Amino acid sequence: MLKENERIDDLMYKGLQLIQHQEGYCFTQDSVILSHFVKASAKETLVDLGTGSGILAILAAKKTQASSIIGIELQERLADMALRSVALNKLHEKVRIVKGDIKEAYTLIGEQVFDVVCTNPPYMASKKDSTAEIDICKYEIAITLQEVIKSADRLLKYGGRFYMVHRADRLADIVDIMRGTHIEPKRLIPIQPTAEKIIDTVVIEGKKGGKPSLVFERPIIIYNQKGELTPCARKIYNLD
Amino acid sequence: MLKENERIDDLMYKGLQLIQHQEGYCFTQDSVILSHFVKASAKETLVDLGTGSGILAILAAKKTQASSIIGIELQERLADMALRSVALNKLHEKVRIVKGDIKEAYTLIGEQVFDVVCTNPPYMASKKDSTAEIDICKYEIAITLQEVIKSADRLLKYGGRFYMVHRADRLADIVDIMRGTHIEPKRLIPIQPTAEKIIDTVVIEGKKGGKPSLVFERPIIIYNQKGELTPCARKIYNLD
Repeated sequence: MLKENERIDDLMYKGLQLIQHQEGYCFTQDSVILSHFVKASAKETLVDLGTGSGILAILAAKKTQASSIIGIELQERLADMALRSVALNKLHEKVRIVKGDIKEAYTLIGEQVFDVVCTNPPYMASKKDSTAEIDICKYEIAITLQEVIKSADRLLKYGGRFYMVHRADRLADIVDIMRGTHIEPKRLIPIQPTAEKIIDTVVIEGKKGGKPSLVFERPIIIYNQKGELTPCARKIYNLD
Repeated sequence: MLKENERIDDLMYKGLQLIQHQEGYCFTQDSVILSHFVKASAKETLVDLGTGSGILAILAAKKTQASSIIGIELQERLADMALRSVALNKLHEKVRIVKGDIKEAYTLIGEQVFDVVCTNPPYMASKKDSTAEIDICKYEIAITLQEVIKSADRLLKYGGRFYMVHRADRLADIVDIMRGTHIEPKRLIPIQPTAEKIIDTVVIEGKKGGKPSLVFERPIIIYNQKGELTPCARKIYNLD
């Protein structure tokens, strides 16, 4: 099951495990936070754009009721690990990993047929000339934010939902780009490292064809003044 | 100084007072909150779009260093009260009230010449067929959000700053419209009634010609669990 320099990490949720490469891209808490907010009923299908080693697709298999989940991943090594993690967790009947470009996803899996699209995309706008796996996950090298959201729009049914975690300093870009598609921002959840710090991360939920009107949630605060995880963060991280 | 059914209210800041009509539109805490965030140096000029009875223009005269302040107000009775409040506070050398339409403001006071524009505009998008003073202040009857922001863009110098208080559920509209002008959203301050409630109000600061990148501030919480004003709110309301 494991190739050289790989390890199995415990996702601390219903026995889920994930294969990750020691020197490659490893998932961050952002994906775990996002997985807490993604909802899908038993009749709904879900796509994760840029699934990496499969973290969000695999968590969604147990955290949502979605009947079918597809994780799209461009990078060969990550897609291969995600595929083996799906098998490791015996989720092959529910979760499919498709190696491919997010921009072409609609040609690979279908257009305007999915109920839910979620993504933790490359979040750094700065151009960086690199082919390293980690850089392609972090920087807008292989794909821009605009292209990710456009792809989500093409995949979603009318009325379908979009969930994304991103950097708070990109909020104007996010809203502007969503408004340029059919996905209306409907819910904003600010994530704050501590009550004293500024908001550094946002989770945004959109609805394809939704009417304008945003619910601006109170922030999720991760650490208290003593440096301990707050009850809310413990719940999100599946520690309680 | 006072006409029929008018009263003088204490603004609880450096002796400032405001004439308001008993049955007309009275200013809300939103204007006081906004006045806390508006900054202007001694070399800068400031315009308040839709000044009503002059609350923001008059507070800005003492809270900022601005050398010159203009309050634009469409409605005759409100503009007249604002004018008398300026005299009452002996601010006539610094503050000018101009009766006119925000949409035409650039023809009345000049185009691309101001350093700072602030506004607490009509905030309800719903169409309401009314000519009542209060409704014109609250609903987008005489002017839309888009027209307010377009006017600010025409008035501001390149590099000038824009400050607005608005409803949090309009955030996507606000960002989308600002992006459609030259005013880049640079700072977002969420306002939360209590730590348990969702965010209902936002203060947004933009910069004409600014580079994309938003500072997403931690929320201002108004009341604590006991129903008392928080230290932060007391400071904003000038109570300490």
